[in-house]
Amino acid sequence: MQNLGKKIYEGKAKILYATEDPQVILVHYKNDATAFNAQKKGAIAGKGEINCAITTHLFQFLEQQGIATHFIAQTAPDQIKAIAVKIIPIEVVVRNIAAGSLCKRLGIEQGSVLRRSIVEFYYKDDALGDPLISEEHIDLLSLATPEQVLQLKQLAFKINQHLQAFLAKCNLILVDFKLEFGLDHNQKMLLSDEISPDTCRLWDSSEPDHQKKILDKDRFRQDLGKVEEAYREVRDRILAQSY
Amino acid sequence: MQNLGKKIYEGKAKILYATEDPQVILVHYKNDATAFNAQKKGAIAGKGEINCAITTHLFQFLEQQGIATHFIAQTAPDQIKAIAVKIIPIEVVVRNIAAGSLCKRLGIEQGSVLRRSIVEFYYKDDALGDPLISEEHIDLLSLATPEQVLQLKQLAFKINQHLQAFLAKCNLILVDFKLEFGLDHNQKMLLSDEISPDTCRLWDSSEPDHQKKILDKDRFRQDLGKVEEAYREVRDRILAQSY
Repeated sequence: MQNLGKKIYEGKAKILYATEDPQVILVHYKNDATAFNAQKKGAIAGKGEINCAITTHLFQFLEQQGIATHFIAQTAPDQIKAIAVKIIPIEVVVRNIAAGSLCKRLGIEQGSVLRRSIVEFYYKDDALGDPLISEEHIDLLSLATPEQVLQLKQLAFKINQHLQAFLAKCNLILVDFKLEFGLDHNQKMLLSDEISPDTCRLWDSSEPDHQKKILDKDRFRQDLGKVEEAYREVRDRILAQSY
Repeated sequence: MQNLGKKIYEGKAKILYATEDPQVILVHYKNDATAFNAQKKGAIAGKGEINCAITTHLFQFLEQQGIATHFIAQTAPDQIKAIAVKIIPIEVVVRNIAAGSLCKRLGIEQGSVLRRSIVEFYYKDDALGDPLISEEHIDLLSLATPEQVLQLKQLAFKINQHLQAFLAKCNLILVDFKLEFGLDHNQKMLLSDEISPDTCRLWDSSEPDHQKKILDKDRFRQDLGKVEEAYREVRDRILAQSY
């Protein structure tokens, strides 16, 4: 484990630490779990290590597919070394199947396969409850340039294609997921944050029972039980799949 | 007054009637007022005639500026003859100054002049509460083609420029407003519905007191009193201004 420097930022699921190199940080994955804009709080035993392992594997896979990420190396079971970035305050959500807020917003039935995958943008602001925003709002608030927004969309769709294909081999259906991107000191856009059952809806394609199908944070959100088991199952399937 | 044919549709503020010509309808403006997705209901005396007069004047003005509308002629104090259209189920909102839901969504202070005017799209669906949607949602639900969305935006910004200039001459600040568009039997896009204090936020530029400034449906929404007086004031100022 690398020595931890000054704490730069503590989020709901991760803590960022400085290193001697200003362009490198350490990301520590926590066991804490929150939902519904942190109105529901708890912990999932082992989650830090599980999500760190999954993110490491998927970021390395995506790097191999030509997607630039902030990942440098795993430095402990619950810690990675990453390129320091300025996070763009936009949560980029990709949806393949209707679930969660999309069903409520558009009146689409849970589980419907979307006619086409879509990208949504949410303003990363806890105090406002991470509201849905449009490209007009992004421009109004100067959260990103129109060129960056186009790049976010193109990257999101490309990552979706790669992840869908990879996860299908693990018998996992990628329902939807949230990405965050950051800019390094050269203003290069890097996939940042994490990809894990905290940030993806993953359904077991080999399981016909809908309740048992769910292998992601919805088990925690909806008190479905066996949360830790689901996270472990996802990790084991993903790590078993070479890229 | 033209004879009323079969009722085609009754909305919250208007009733549409068929005529002998399938390409022509009659629009009757009601006094009924609703707010907060019809959770608040009431009536504003004389509103039907006031909004009919304002819409007639502004639609004629916009036609003169080259904007195609569904307006044909006023046929009674609370009735117009219009081209039959299929309404695109998208409420097109233009905002110049922060008010209402924009303040809540983005945490912007009420009354802030926006760095640039923005267009927002809302899914016209009462059961869903007319949710904010993005261009991705519009495409997913096939509410309009990408070309039509571009046209909606361009028309909305153009109408905003013309209306802002016209209303400024009436000492009225156009804070924000909602437009609806329809397609005629040739698929031509026509500005439809109405432009009135029901669908615009209008502030009196000659009044420093913020509460007194408001001359639109916010007086009804927020129980500010003198609702009818405000609507009459807007009508009188607009009708006094030739185009």
